[in-house]
Amino acid sequence: MTQYKPPLQDLSFLLTHVFDIDDHAARAGIELDAETVMAIAEEAGKLAAGCIDPINRAGDTHGARMENGGVVTAPGFREAYAAYRDGQWSTLRFDADHGGQGLSAVIAAAVDEMWHGASISFALCPMLTNGAVEALTLAASDDVKKLFLSRLVSGEWTGTMNLTEPQAGSDLAAVKTRAVRQADGRYRIFGQKIFITYGDHDLTDNIVHLVLARVEGAPAGVKGLSLFAVPKRMVGADGSLLERNDLVCAALEHKLGIHGSPTAVMVFGETEGAVGYLVGEENRGLEYMFIMMNDARYSVGLQGLAISERAYQHAVAYARERVQGVPIGRGRESASPILHHPDVRRLLLAARSDIDAMRAFAMHVAMQKDLSHSQAASPQARKRAEERLGFMIPILKGWFTENAVRIASDALQVFGGMGYVEETGAAQYYRDARILTIYEGTTAIQANDLVGRKTLRDGGTVAMAVLEDIRQHANALQDLDQPAAVGLCGMLLQACTLQEEVLRWLKDNHEGNPAATHAGAVPYLMLWGMLCGGWMHALRLKGAASIGHSSRETDAVNMSASYYAKHVLPHAVALSSAIQFGAKPVTGFPDECW
Amino acid sequence: MTQYKPPLQDLSFLLTHVFDIDDHAARAGIELDAETVMAIAEEAGKLAAGCIDPINRAGDTHGARMENGGVVTAPGFREAYAAYRDGQWSTLRFDADHGGQGLSAVIAAAVDEMWHGASISFALCPMLTNGAVEALTLAASDDVKKLFLSRLVSGEWTGTMNLTEPQAGSDLAAVKTRAVRQADGRYRIFGQKIFITYGDHDLTDNIVHLVLARVEGAPAGVKGLSLFAVPKRMVGADGSLLERNDLVCAALEHKLGIHGSPTAVMVFGETEGAVGYLVGEENRGLEYMFIMMNDARYSVGLQGLAISERAYQHAVAYARERVQGVPIGRGRESASPILHHPDVRRLLLAARSDIDAMRAFAMHVAMQKDLSHSQAASPQARKRAEERLGFMIPILKGWFTENAVRIASDALQVFGGMGYVEETGAAQYYRDARILTIYEGTTAIQANDLVGRKTLRDGGTVAMAVLEDIRQHANALQDLDQPAAVGLCGMLLQACTLQEEVLRWLKDNHEGNPAATHAGAVPYLMLWGMLCGGWMHALRLKGAASIGHSSRETDAVNMSASYYAKHVLPHAVALSSAIQFGAKPVTGFPDECW
Repeated sequence: MTQYKPPLQDLSFLLTHVFDIDDHAARAGIELDAETVMAIAEEAGKLAAGCIDPINRAGDTHGARMENGGVVTAPGFREAYAAYRDGQWSTLRFDADHGGQGLSAVIAAAVDEMWHGASISFALCPMLTNGAVEALTLAASDDVKKLFLSRLVSGEWTGTMNLTEPQAGSDLAAVKTRAVRQADGRYRIFGQKIFITYGDHDLTDNIVHLVLARVEGAPAGVKGLSLFAVPKRMVGADGSLLERNDLVCAALEHKLGIHGSPTAVMVFGETEGAVGYLVGEENRGLEYMFIMMNDARYSVGLQGLAISERAYQHAVAYARERVQGVPIGRGRESASPILHHPDVRRLLLAARSDIDAMRAFAMHVAMQKDLSHSQAASPQARKRAEERLGFMIPILKGWFTENAVRIASDALQVFGGMGYVEETGAAQYYRDARILTIYEGTTAIQANDLVGRKTLRDGGTVAMAVLEDIRQHANALQDLDQPAAVGLCGMLLQACTLQEEVLRWLKDNHEGNPAATHAGAVPYLMLWGMLCGGWMHALRLKGAASIGHSSRETDAVNMSASYYAKHVLPHAVALSSAIQFGAKPVTGFPDECW
Repeated sequence: MTQYKPPLQDLSFLLTHVFDIDDHAARAGIELDAETVMAIAEEAGKLAAGCIDPINRAGDTHGARMENGGVVTAPGFREAYAAYRDGQWSTLRFDADHGGQGLSAVIAAAVDEMWHGASISFALCPMLTNGAVEALTLAASDDVKKLFLSRLVSGEWTGTMNLTEPQAGSDLAAVKTRAVRQADGRYRIFGQKIFITYGDHDLTDNIVHLVLARVEGAPAGVKGLSLFAVPKRMVGADGSLLERNDLVCAALEHKLGIHGSPTAVMVFGETEGAVGYLVGEENRGLEYMFIMMNDARYSVGLQGLAISERAYQHAVAYARERVQGVPIGRGRESASPILHHPDVRRLLLAARSDIDAMRAFAMHVAMQKDLSHSQAASPQARKRAEERLGFMIPILKGWFTENAVRIASDALQVFGGMGYVEETGAAQYYRDARILTIYEGTTAIQANDLVGRKTLRDGGTVAMAVLEDIRQHANALQDLDQPAAVGLCGMLLQACTLQEEVLRWLKDNHEGNPAATHAGAVPYLMLWGMLCGGWMHALRLKGAASIGHSSRETDAVNMSASYYAKHVLPHAVALSSAIQFGAKPVTGFPDECW
């Protein structure tokens, strides 16, 4: 196995040449400069490469397993978690009120990519804890905060999200778990939850489950769901750990991948009921969950970027070292590394070009996060950032993760027959990546959100504004007077025109034929992803030009952008055709004939 | 798990309405009619669904394993193989000389799809035996034929292909296995081979390995390779089984999928050398192997079709049964099966539309096989069929298998979170399918063959002739006067124009810049696949129109073709852009910057 290399060079390029971090810091009213980010990222990179990446394979081969009614994680996971916690990495993003460091979302994105790049299975645990902290911070009463929050922020305990039930997956309206109000203001929870990531483990002494349940007498559907904090072990007013709560991990799923991450079946209330603390108000649970989910969706998108980078690095290393055949067009007599074979280069550049686009976009969206809850920004600026964030999160989640599945597959292909042998490691990335388009809402769920709530609800206003931004940056490429820039400009403007046509079509057809507009939802999301990718390559080209002299590194930026212009953006034509003209067979295919 | 349903309905449609089987039989001088094919296919379907499909899951969970130096197959594999052999299915395609039934390649394609649809892991064993029979029939001396052939045809023994060595994968020039000539005319073989499918097993008493090796003193490179028949157990002149030959299965690979199929490391000649019988002449081994490989590539293409169909069926069954959410645009109040959700339908129709195209193309290519070695056909007709066959096999292998990887992934997506749980079975198809773009030559190997030997060597003559055929069938669609046909016609003609441009570009650039033309080789192959798929949908539309009245079934044919026209063929623009304008970044990306 290769060792993970934190993408520090690209990060530095983005911070120094592509984005104006000082301007961002001023607008968001935060302390942030490129040197600080790089210093933190380098430290995170050491932990990721030296301590977390090495356990990833054991996570796969050993898996997490049940032992005496509890979950034992794979070898090395406890030590890696201790190092993560002791390094105070869990506190990075959170407010100082509960022990956080209050750092920018840009920094969080940079370091989170590294945890996931090193081991998605490991990094899922902190990722879920972050979601729980978000929800409690936003909605919980001071009493509940006091019980749980500081120890989640410090990483002493971890958190989970308990949404899914066997009959309630994408459709949370079907949740059946019950909550019974007690005289002391607490509740008793009864029900079964499935697919609970790190629902049990041996990394910490306690786990705080956030559980979606229905208080007796609440309305049916999503408007009757409430959110509860349900600890694995009860906590005294003085913070001491008391008896076990009435909840158990009944089983672990046997999954295609991410074996190091225990996916639990959780049973609440086998006897007297699990004690739960209401978070916020009754019947507003879904609203709070959506806040967690928004953040979790961003994180899953980052996982897509991260595993793409990791799988790509692994394939590049093999391509450099594996000698096989005389490459076409190199005029050599002797065999050479497969990196010189044209199609191996095509596979690798396809990955690289997407990764470059995704990392820039992840940072762009992180900046919207900073602005959306900045007290320094004007209400207008906050609102604008919030709208952008809402619009971009489903794109980031759907597009990044669909890319990741393809990139992990292409990376395996580079290995040829060796890629199909598990010991090589490429197969693990392929298996691990496959969950990403599913959890925290499938690509179709993201796409329906993008079409419905994020595009049509405001009549396409935000969508058009983003499109205008992209057009401006595309037009600015002409000033660079470089072939790569001119080529990208043309393709990007053409894609913008197609997307504008699509927006018009969506508006014209949604009321009369919503099934048709949603039949094109995923192509619509992917078209946005493509556009955002081209946009980011435009920014990268501008950044490279600003350096003032050309080098291998600026050549690499140009080639990556050229690839995007010639191989990726031309697919916009087909996506817009699929959306506008392709719904009829999808909705009309006779049900009996499948 | 669902039960495999042999695709008899579509087969009947193809035989009765799409292809003129009587005309084909007359031209090829064979006995063939639709009723006979259907009768045989129905019998094969019973075995596939009732006996082979049920062992597929055990093949995955148990796997084949080493025990006391030999391979033990998974539960049920011995019984299934016995049923296959006793049903004389192994004899189907071969000449009567050695006990075969001499049936048409069309019949072989129909039944082979079913074996692979039921279990790729199982069907690999007969598939490799077929290759060995082909090679021996073509090249072996009468003595060698007499020793092995009839018992391979009858299925009493099985055959393997031993090509790959650790340093010699795609590049067979690097093969090191040695053959030493003995006084008795036989040879002693020394060397290690890897990735040997069914290199050992417990299904039969003997195994005949076809081994590529270098006779001492032979030239370096591929021109010094000879082919040997090396039995696991020696065979007496009377056919009796004698002592073990000096060869062992040293280990099995731990693979991502097809666990039921043992992938062996074979060691020949640990002591005195394994006895091998020269097949044909010395130093012509690669030539014979290519004949086997051509056939094997067709078969792997069929595996792609077969697993696509199986994964699709499995997903359809789940989509019918899983109730979740209120589908957009259906105006219902209550939750309904996810088959009614627009994006689930899109995923399923994308699979279906490709499957429809692939099955028709598999049959079209099978007809070229029949004609290419028919004594009844004129030499010109034989040559034409042979050229078409050579041109189409890399397309069929590359395009079918790339589709299969995507379709197996989309089928898993239909299951949502359940798709990621191994017990559901969707994950197995996803893992199994992933080998298909790799073995028997990766997609890039197929694509290089298509660009170099199959397109440019004859100056694009065959390619242009195929393009003309497609144009004619596209133009004929206008006569049908249906929206689906007119839509397909336009998109297909546009794609033909783009492909013609690409052909011109390839011819103009190949000599000066072969690396550039090969950087676009895979997109070129995929563009051909797309065109052939559109062509087949044109034939299907014509076939449906010929029925004379519309029904659900003809609606399904039309919708599937419409999907292809609106969602698939528009990507031709992007592929032609990638080929003609996208080579520079691929070949020029700075090597230090990967």
